[in-house]
Amino acid sequence: MNAGAPLPPALHAELAPLLGEAWLTDPGERLAYAYDNSRRLALPDAVALPRTREQVQALVRACRRERVPVIARGRGTNTTGASVPVAGGVVVSFERMNRIVDIRPGDRCAVVEPGVLNGDLQTALKPHGLFWPPDPTSAAYSSVGGNLACNAGGPRAVKYGASRDNVLALTAITGAGELIVCGTATTKGSTGYDLHRLLVGSEGTLALIVEASLRLTPSAPARAALRAVYRDVSSAAQAVARLMAQPVTPSMLEFMDGQCVRLARDVGGADLPLDAGALLMIEADGDAHTLPHAIDALKRAAAGDGLLSLDDAADEAARETLWAARKALSPSLRTLAPGKINEDVVVPVSRIPELVDGVQALAREFDLPIVCFGHAGNGNLHVNLLFDPADADQSARAHAAMGRVFELALALGGTLSGEHGIGLAKRDFMPQAVGAQTLALMRQLKTVFDPDAILNPGKLLPDA
Amino acid sequence: MNAGAPLPPALHAELAPLLGEAWLTDPGERLAYAYDNSRRLALPDAVALPRTREQVQALVRACRRERVPVIARGRGTNTTGASVPVAGGVVVSFERMNRIVDIRPGDRCAVVEPGVLNGDLQTALKPHGLFWPPDPTSAAYSSVGGNLACNAGGPRAVKYGASRDNVLALTAITGAGELIVCGTATTKGSTGYDLHRLLVGSEGTLALIVEASLRLTPSAPARAALRAVYRDVSSAAQAVARLMAQPVTPSMLEFMDGQCVRLARDVGGADLPLDAGALLMIEADGDAHTLPHAIDALKRAAAGDGLLSLDDAADEAARETLWAARKALSPSLRTLAPGKINEDVVVPVSRIPELVDGVQALAREFDLPIVCFGHAGNGNLHVNLLFDPADADQSARAHAAMGRVFELALALGGTLSGEHGIGLAKRDFMPQAVGAQTLALMRQLKTVFDPDAILNPGKLLPDA
Repeated sequence: MNAGAPLPPALHAELAPLLGEAWLTDPGERLAYAYDNSRRLALPDAVALPRTREQVQALVRACRRERVPVIARGRGTNTTGASVPVAGGVVVSFERMNRIVDIRPGDRCAVVEPGVLNGDLQTALKPHGLFWPPDPTSAAYSSVGGNLACNAGGPRAVKYGASRDNVLALTAITGAGELIVCGTATTKGSTGYDLHRLLVGSEGTLALIVEASLRLTPSAPARAALRAVYRDVSSAAQAVARLMAQPVTPSMLEFMDGQCVRLARDVGGADLPLDAGALLMIEADGDAHTLPHAIDALKRAAAGDGLLSLDDAADEAARETLWAARKALSPSLRTLAPGKINEDVVVPVSRIPELVDGVQALAREFDLPIVCFGHAGNGNLHVNLLFDPADADQSARAHAAMGRVFELALALGGTLSGEHGIGLAKRDFMPQAVGAQTLALMRQLKTVFDPDAILNPGKLLPDA
Repeated sequence: MNAGAPLPPALHAELAPLLGEAWLTDPGERLAYAYDNSRRLALPDAVALPRTREQVQALVRACRRERVPVIARGRGTNTTGASVPVAGGVVVSFERMNRIVDIRPGDRCAVVEPGVLNGDLQTALKPHGLFWPPDPTSAAYSSVGGNLACNAGGPRAVKYGASRDNVLALTAITGAGELIVCGTATTKGSTGYDLHRLLVGSEGTLALIVEASLRLTPSAPARAALRAVYRDVSSAAQAVARLMAQPVTPSMLEFMDGQCVRLARDVGGADLPLDAGALLMIEADGDAHTLPHAIDALKRAAAGDGLLSLDDAADEAARETLWAARKALSPSLRTLAPGKINEDVVVPVSRIPELVDGVQALAREFDLPIVCFGHAGNGNLHVNLLFDPADADQSARAHAAMGRVFELALALGGTLSGEHGIGLAKRDFMPQAVGAQTLALMRQLKTVFDPDAILNPGKLLPDA
């Protein structure tokens, strides 16, 4: 069905009474569910706000019968267009399925509905001394279901893993309208095929998650941060490899290239040396006894050829000052150009220098600013291409350069995305990232879960 | 094809020259590949010892053409019959594909062929200060490929995860004879469907792993152990929950029930109090600075109602003494009865007391000794049913009791296996553990990877 085509009357007749005021067909209401943080926009034909798994199952079955697309939606914070209904159909927003069903501290487990906000979950876990590791920038206003659908990560992933590493079991409705329970709410399991990790990162193309049992981690009572400034990217990247090869895993290990350092200083007003070619933000967590030793170990690993300065934050206020440089970054980028493509390629840690050098060569070749920062401990860099979208030539160059950035990451043994996912933005690059046989297998898996291809059509997998 | 049927002549004619002396058809040679640690036995029709992925691919394609089963084999240490060729066919033993291809400390990554022994890999990693977390009891003589096929764990999994948590990418040959590359050798990735974790634990029923990129962890320079003795299982289980709810995750957290403690004392000669109802072996790792504080935190969490004694091991020798009680256990079980069924159910940590109580009730009901010990931090207990296999009535009671143990674990929100897998031993219980729709989906996934059902027939999935 095409965008904007009317819903089949039989579908409307079935779903309107099922959902009542949670079935939206007014164009103004639908518009609020037409976009995501990719700034792409396509109007859905209807929006459902279910409260129960039974409603979700009935909806999927009805849509399957009528061959109408179903697009799962958390809060639309993803950057790849994964929740934009490009083929029309029904957007299923999980905003009302937002109960925290159970928190079991001794089991390190929380059971939640998919619409719970990541930030609300963290607040509820705090009194128990626990947290759920995924911490995307959007955490305060993105949903757990959306985090799972995109395999969201964040700075803490270097020590605590991304979404896929922190889920024990999922209940979901497949595209065939079947309810499946995948995994067990235990921290170990070897009972048949691992379906729940397969659903994580599948961007709503295989099934709609209606409940998640999450793996929790006890919070360390204290943390401390270091800011290490290096002469050049290569020195900083070597420090990253040293930091990751020793036993005290940092709880964050963030990288900024020279361009970012300059922006943070000149535009953001951060106190940073003029000759800085790269910067690392390094954080450890622990308790009052162990933290000083952990910070010492990280200092030893951070030290080496090319280190210009190494500052530690004695308290939380000093830590905030250090992070100010990182936070000053995103707004500063707007001073370079009004438009930005932000992709999140990932490479093995040892290949970071080649990635950053290669990106700078592309910046020269395409005559556009490109800045790199991100989660160095995972080799997961955010490559920001800056351009003027009003300038057709610049836009074309920016998109061509981004294709070359993906080629570069793949050539270095990396891949297209570390935590944002594929969505619309990167699906045309999938054949370069994934071999033809493996891609064919992914298509067949999709058919098993979603035999009539109604779930989030046009996303993740390229057209055949 | 039935066990013992002759190989199709065309298959022999193709594979004999391809593999040369690595193609075994002599009955005496085949017998060495007929069994595994389940003590089941079925003669394969031929055995292949490939050295390259190209040989594996050619073999699978030829077997597919002739509809001959292909059974991947590591070193046959698994306990479920997963590598026993019950339908005849060709056993593919990976013992000659045992190269460590690459170790990249800065990337925390090792690339290996599947036949590398876990113990040999650990030895090679040691000079780099790294280890691969899975540590099954069989580690010295089991292969990485076999560990991955069964999602092997071990005591360290409580802190460092099992096999599935420690693999970045896999290259494999599907049952369709296609070579697929799944995942990327990076510690983060969100590029399409997660196929490599799906292959882990699939027991050779989806594809044959020909190369693995493993996630490594830096070794802590020091470790220390505690032995905590409790009045009863409930007190010990409450201590486990307290230990897991605080931030210092133990590097091992092993449980022994009262029966085990008695055996370790009376038969193994361990120095243990007479009134012990349960025992925990607790270990932490760290460095000289942090370890004493970690042990203090674990002592605080171990203390509580029902604690009878808490001993720490000042040095490695004292630690070995503590572990002696645990090691004395397996041989001691033979004094109770000549036969043993050892299953490894898993439940949420908070349900351990109900599991152990329930098992003791079954021991009374079926009039057979049952002892429980294992990986308490993951809720993964080894339930050992002791009986005389020569006594038909005892054997029948033992198998009936084991079915009830599985029912109990499932009723407590757990599952059939934490780390041994399903194989032949537990596949008939799969319909109880996995819902009908989910099981149907697993069957369809199997068909995608293995359209002619040649890979390890009769394992993991129950007969339809």
